[in-house]
Amino acid sequence: MATKQSNGNGAFAAANGNGKSNGAAHHAMNGKSNGAAAPEPEAVDWKFARAKEGVLAISGAKMSIRAVRYKISASVREDGPRPVLPLAHGDPSVFPAFRTAIEAEDAVAAALRTGELNCYPAGVGLPAARRAVAEHLSQSLPYKLSQDDIFLTAGGTQAIEAIIPVLAQPGTNILLPKPGYPNYEARAAFNNLEVRHFNLLPEKGWEIDVDSLESIADKNTTAMVIINPNNPCGSVYSFEHLTKVAEVARKLGILVIADEVYGKLVLGSAPFIPMGVFGHIAPVLTIGSLSKSWIVPGWRLGWIAVCDPKKVLQETKIATSITNFLNVSTDPATFIQGALPQILENTKEEFFQGIIALLTESSEICHREIKENKFITCPHKPEGSMFVMVKLMLQLLEDIDDDIDFCCKLAKEESVILCPGSVLGMENWVRITFAIVPSSLLDGLQRIKSFCQRHKNKNLINEVNCKLD
Amino acid sequence: MATKQSNGNGAFAAANGNGKSNGAAHHAMNGKSNGAAAPEPEAVDWKFARAKEGVLAISGAKMSIRAVRYKISASVREDGPRPVLPLAHGDPSVFPAFRTAIEAEDAVAAALRTGELNCYPAGVGLPAARRAVAEHLSQSLPYKLSQDDIFLTAGGTQAIEAIIPVLAQPGTNILLPKPGYPNYEARAAFNNLEVRHFNLLPEKGWEIDVDSLESIADKNTTAMVIINPNNPCGSVYSFEHLTKVAEVARKLGILVIADEVYGKLVLGSAPFIPMGVFGHIAPVLTIGSLSKSWIVPGWRLGWIAVCDPKKVLQETKIATSITNFLNVSTDPATFIQGALPQILENTKEEFFQGIIALLTESSEICHREIKENKFITCPHKPEGSMFVMVKLMLQLLEDIDDDIDFCCKLAKEESVILCPGSVLGMENWVRITFAIVPSSLLDGLQRIKSFCQRHKNKNLINEVNCKLD
Repeated sequence: MATKQSNGNGAFAAANGNGKSNGAAHHAMNGKSNGAAAPEPEAVDWKFARAKEGVLAISGAKMSIRAVRYKISASVREDGPRPVLPLAHGDPSVFPAFRTAIEAEDAVAAALRTGELNCYPAGVGLPAARRAVAEHLSQSLPYKLSQDDIFLTAGGTQAIEAIIPVLAQPGTNILLPKPGYPNYEARAAFNNLEVRHFNLLPEKGWEIDVDSLESIADKNTTAMVIINPNNPCGSVYSFEHLTKVAEVARKLGILVIADEVYGKLVLGSAPFIPMGVFGHIAPVLTIGSLSKSWIVPGWRLGWIAVCDPKKVLQETKIATSITNFLNVSTDPATFIQGALPQILENTKEEFFQGIIALLTESSEICHREIKENKFITCPHKPEGSMFVMVKLMLQLLEDIDDDIDFCCKLAKEESVILCPGSVLGMENWVRITFAIVPSSLLDGLQRIKSFCQRHKNKNLINEVNCKLD
Repeated sequence: MATKQSNGNGAFAAANGNGKSNGAAHHAMNGKSNGAAAPEPEAVDWKFARAKEGVLAISGAKMSIRAVRYKISASVREDGPRPVLPLAHGDPSVFPAFRTAIEAEDAVAAALRTGELNCYPAGVGLPAARRAVAEHLSQSLPYKLSQDDIFLTAGGTQAIEAIIPVLAQPGTNILLPKPGYPNYEARAAFNNLEVRHFNLLPEKGWEIDVDSLESIADKNTTAMVIINPNNPCGSVYSFEHLTKVAEVARKLGILVIADEVYGKLVLGSAPFIPMGVFGHIAPVLTIGSLSKSWIVPGWRLGWIAVCDPKKVLQETKIATSITNFLNVSTDPATFIQGALPQILENTKEEFFQGIIALLTESSEICHREIKENKFITCPHKPEGSMFVMVKLMLQLLEDIDDDIDFCCKLAKEESVILCPGSVLGMENWVRITFAIVPSSLLDGLQRIKSFCQRHKNKNLINEVNCKLD
């Protein structure tokens, strides 16, 4: 203890120039309170130790892209000669070419400088900001949304945080896409909501296996999630496909959670159709955000739009439950909310055209380079979002156990970070983002190619020679 | 249906200038999908209707200060001749006199303008920002905190969101102060964590009834919450009192959640002692924030500091659980995190002195005016935070049922908003904030006085004549 005490006092002594802390220091040095510290912690039965189970209770977090990304990033050699290429997650904001619209940045700076938006916001958002989102989304809907249909959230992430617990009742379940976005699984696990997966079909442009929905759903199924434009597959769903989905949802009596955070990022000629267009068939909760379309995931501004012209979600109090949840939850920064009307109104079409042009170019490079790499295959050319799903031909590789092993070794040897498919529900696939400047993307894809060449299975070399050379 | 359809089409027609939405419109007008809408919703058994129970599941939200504040604010007459005086919640940021430090505002604007902080932050915060908080807090502790001891959160609110579920295991309970801050009750209810209340003693300067802790705790008690400087009572706890609390926590084997968001707002000569000073006695999770001390609750930047020199929370994986939770939760805006080191380093002492001087003046006015109003009593002069708890002498008033009735009628007749004590656990008390410009505070307290005079119980007039005049 003597050592401990002198350490403590030493630390205090170091904390000069702060009268209060010295006051505390003075007290702390009077034996009594330190005396109480004498018994060693082993002597104490810390009751919260059982909260260790808490780790399991939120084991969903083990599926978090972040947790896995950290593991893989940790494999990167500190002393690597080449720059690390982040092809794992959808955040190109670090590249100057992907800098957000100056109108958006100016709007946030101006809101901050008023000094009038440092206050707590209302629990579901500033009225003017909610109204602006309602008008913005109504442009693409067959009915008008009102301010009351919009809940502002701290990014799409908090939208998921708010919706899942409202649906999580004992015995209920939710239908999630496979592959999908693991935060849904993580939040469902955290809220003890049973998850049932339906497949996205690579051979059908990653469309939802609509027929399977009826077989996996039961009377306790309350909702399904559809991500469009799709993360991780890069597909954009047709009007006909979305109509089928809405009709099945109606037949099952479930609501549709439409994750449309990539809504503006459509590369091909096929238009993006908001699920809310079908709100009269089945009620829709649309999740949107500035994060991807404005390339500002760090601003943490998103929303939930209640696209439900028949007011089913109002009658069933789902909207009230979401309000209650958000009233005791954190919020997007008030001044960023305050800037939202100007952001939505003033951002020039040229900005989005520039981003789309950049993503189109890089998606072409991505698709071309993958085709030229026989060790990986891409079943469907990306049409939107920032991603493509690629299958690993593991039988052509040696000493690669699975997708996570592939990603860890690739990070170590080539300083390229990919997202292993197993965290998205597709083992031995990988997700590659093309939301990165074309030159870096090309570099990354060529490093992947030489990595595969280096690890190719020599025993198979003769059989598949023709394929490999 | 005909009308419905034409409405729908009308809405579409209104959505011109957007090729995609018109594309959708065109499709929507082709009978098929609209045809599918023909059956009325009554025909559908919406499975998520049972999620109505979701409202109950988060009934904690009914205790939210926000929800009650909205109810009371709704009582204010739109056409009221006088300005509405917000004496309910702790957010003076709307008053120019309480504008945040220019150094803080400049730091955030500069971080935004780099364009390099629009990215996703790490799950528990930017390393530089965590390090800055660790150094800032270490100045007042007998040991050094490291970056790894700090988790950045989207305000103190998200700190509570992250800590409560980690402690919420089947059968466990937590000890909360009465009166207290209702977000703890709301989050506990949401996570099915049993709450047991201990009293704060008005006659003892709102100190914790330490003796009662042992009687209400049992082997399933995992933690207690202490708020210092105290919301809602305005008290600041002494070194001796905090020592007793730490020793009882150790004896019970529970951790201490120290809510110190008002840490810099101490008005009297008594110093603020961080609970972390006693981390060697019992492990402490300290909740801090920029919200109150920098008067920027809308910036949503707070932290959890693990003040636990003996690493008990590390061994018991509490810290890991918090990390897992935050990895699948939203974050504070990245550029605001990026500004944190400059905010903590550059904010001049003069700023805090100015705020303290303003709060001291208004707290004096508050205490004086309350003493001159015989219909309310204040057992303890506020020494910190932004609040004082005041008891209503309901027997001296007529046609006032309780504290909520008092607040609603006061809002209606005098356009003064107070926080009813019942949402804080103290029926027939009210919480008054003095964090408002002195002139408005004086105006508000005088309106309260005339309100009371107007509602005084005339039957008692003779008995207590001496007291009332």
